[in-house]
Amino acid sequence: MREDKPLFTPGPLTTSEGVKRAMLRDVGSRDSAFIDTIARIRTGLLELAGVSQADGWEAVLMQGSGTFGIEAVISSALPAEGALLVARNGAYGARIAAIAAVHGIEVVDVAGPENRPCDPAEIERALAASPHVTHVALVHCETTTGIFNPVAEVGAAARRHGARLILDSMSAFGSVELDLAACAVDFLVSSANKCIEGVPGFSFALARGDAIAESEGRARTFSLDLFAQWRGLERDGQFRFTPPTHAILAFEQALAELAAEGGVAGRGERYHRNRDRLVEGMRALGFREYLPDALQGHVITSFRYPEGDRFDFEEFYDRLNARGFVIYPGKVTDAECFRIGSIGRLFEADVDGLLAAIEAVLGEMELDLRATTEGVQ
Amino acid sequence: MREDKPLFTPGPLTTSEGVKRAMLRDVGSRDSAFIDTIARIRTGLLELAGVSQADGWEAVLMQGSGTFGIEAVISSALPAEGALLVARNGAYGARIAAIAAVHGIEVVDVAGPENRPCDPAEIERALAASPHVTHVALVHCETTTGIFNPVAEVGAAARRHGARLILDSMSAFGSVELDLAACAVDFLVSSANKCIEGVPGFSFALARGDAIAESEGRARTFSLDLFAQWRGLERDGQFRFTPPTHAILAFEQALAELAAEGGVAGRGERYHRNRDRLVEGMRALGFREYLPDALQGHVITSFRYPEGDRFDFEEFYDRLNARGFVIYPGKVTDAECFRIGSIGRLFEADVDGLLAAIEAVLGEMELDLRATTEGVQ
Repeated sequence: MREDKPLFTPGPLTTSEGVKRAMLRDVGSRDSAFIDTIARIRTGLLELAGVSQADGWEAVLMQGSGTFGIEAVISSALPAEGALLVARNGAYGARIAAIAAVHGIEVVDVAGPENRPCDPAEIERALAASPHVTHVALVHCETTTGIFNPVAEVGAAARRHGARLILDSMSAFGSVELDLAACAVDFLVSSANKCIEGVPGFSFALARGDAIAESEGRARTFSLDLFAQWRGLERDGQFRFTPPTHAILAFEQALAELAAEGGVAGRGERYHRNRDRLVEGMRALGFREYLPDALQGHVITSFRYPEGDRFDFEEFYDRLNARGFVIYPGKVTDAECFRIGSIGRLFEADVDGLLAAIEAVLGEMELDLRATTEGVQ
Repeated sequence: MREDKPLFTPGPLTTSEGVKRAMLRDVGSRDSAFIDTIARIRTGLLELAGVSQADGWEAVLMQGSGTFGIEAVISSALPAEGALLVARNGAYGARIAAIAAVHGIEVVDVAGPENRPCDPAEIERALAASPHVTHVALVHCETTTGIFNPVAEVGAAARRHGARLILDSMSAFGSVELDLAACAVDFLVSSANKCIEGVPGFSFALARGDAIAESEGRARTFSLDLFAQWRGLERDGQFRFTPPTHAILAFEQALAELAAEGGVAGRGERYHRNRDRLVEGMRALGFREYLPDALQGHVITSFRYPEGDRFDFEEFYDRLNARGFVIYPGKVTDAECFRIGSIGRLFEADVDGLLAAIEAVLGEMELDLRATTEGVQ
């Protein structure tokens, strides 16, 4: 029996019992066994991305949430005279631009609608018009809507213009095959508590060795200095400052469970099944997705509020919560939506449970959406 | 039976089984029960410091290690034209100066020897000579040596000169009575994994409300923006970015266990007993402390390497580690030392176990320190 409510959110997520139980230990940060754990995690993360240190790739772990990892890369990689093209179609792209702005980094803003993938042709034109751009930032799966952006095409455009690609793969990495080298990614950032299903506490960057090396002396902060963190990990295998030891032990277990599930492919298949079951069930209840089918990713789905002004999301959320299911509010700017995640230690049976609870809550709220949307499908 | 080696270090520390078991849950960061947990932690931290929100004090939690918390305060509190007087007598004071330097903040460096407390009279003279100083930074217990610095006297000097006091109480807070208001402290920073005996994952700042308020717009980073984090916590009770939910659940349990032990006074007494037993036993084995008795704090003790060049610390450390005891290397710049902590979920029986292991290891290494130091005592 699960004590806790399943979390249909973009994170923190539901994790396995084994992952949580790995935290029932206190280990010293200088302990050789712990240093070995960090080394195995760094190697394992590169393997997930199909690259290795021998091929010139590096993995750097950084304390804090995913946003801390994004800021570490942006504020460490951009040279003083650099400029960052931000391709954005949602809140997380906008956040990257905001991070750059705090550090006084020039931003070339390529904004598109939230219901369309970023347009590589438009990015290519912007790069041609702004030859001083040194780095391009792209969000892999924009959690605002759940849309996936075209990494390979944007990577190719960046490479043609001699710019490095920084990929925010926070909510996607570990559940979707990605060939870092082929996509011309220079930095990929994700966090412990997304598709690898660890607990929150640190993020990580996978980066080309030469991209890390050229970051020396560029950092604009002390704690989030990616180069210094990398150099420390290489020198003695340790974090520069106190690591979240328990979250790291949990993460090693999470990586083992990911491998046992069939790696990235197996994990992605489960999430796809969760998403398919969710969308099918929600449609049957009368809900409609924000994104068209062809653009809907497997990580998180935005559903439009039912038509009319009778839908009170807070009440809907609270009633579901009282029944033991946690969903997520929307973040789309031009439409009223809420979101339901498909990631974390959740299975189709959990989705069925959620759908039954949603049906019951709609009954309590006296909302029969099937009546109003009949014939639309 | 304890599975893990007791950690006689400055952190990560040994924690209780109850603290670790509190992490066997996955909770949503927007969950009202979790929001209540954060609120209780914020209130509880202020209570430990003898202040309250009603009296104009605020508690802000921040993801990352203690250094992240220090950087959050330094980089958020100092105005663009500000200057920071850093009173330093060890590595952690030097780190504060390094953080300020990264952010281009002018530092007035008041450095003293590592075996003496910072001198309030010298700080007073430096403040008189540098009337443009806006903030003073002081380390409460300098973990480099274990020495305690005179908070009340430095606070009074800062106040006389209209400067705010930032106190790095990383390794001391929760185990020593401190009247924040009487000591003229404006910001106190500590972390989850020190004397409150939580697990690593976040730090916290306790600050006067007006000091937080005047920080608006001053932050030099995005993630470590103390004002924005405070405003977010006040607005909806949530962290701005994914919180380390498991570490926070553990911390609430740690606060309950601290209260059950008799609060700050009870915790401090146990640490003092640990320290007393340690020093007595180490002296009997022939070791000598770096600091004179009168200056030795209860958090961590620096011991000098035995005289002669026969002492190989790495071998000593490894042999103790093989016997299941973790100690810590030294950080003093002008003397060869190692360190042994007295904090964390450790009791006199643990210290006795360590002392027996040290005696056995000295035998293995054929070091009889009692012979060489006889008569010194």
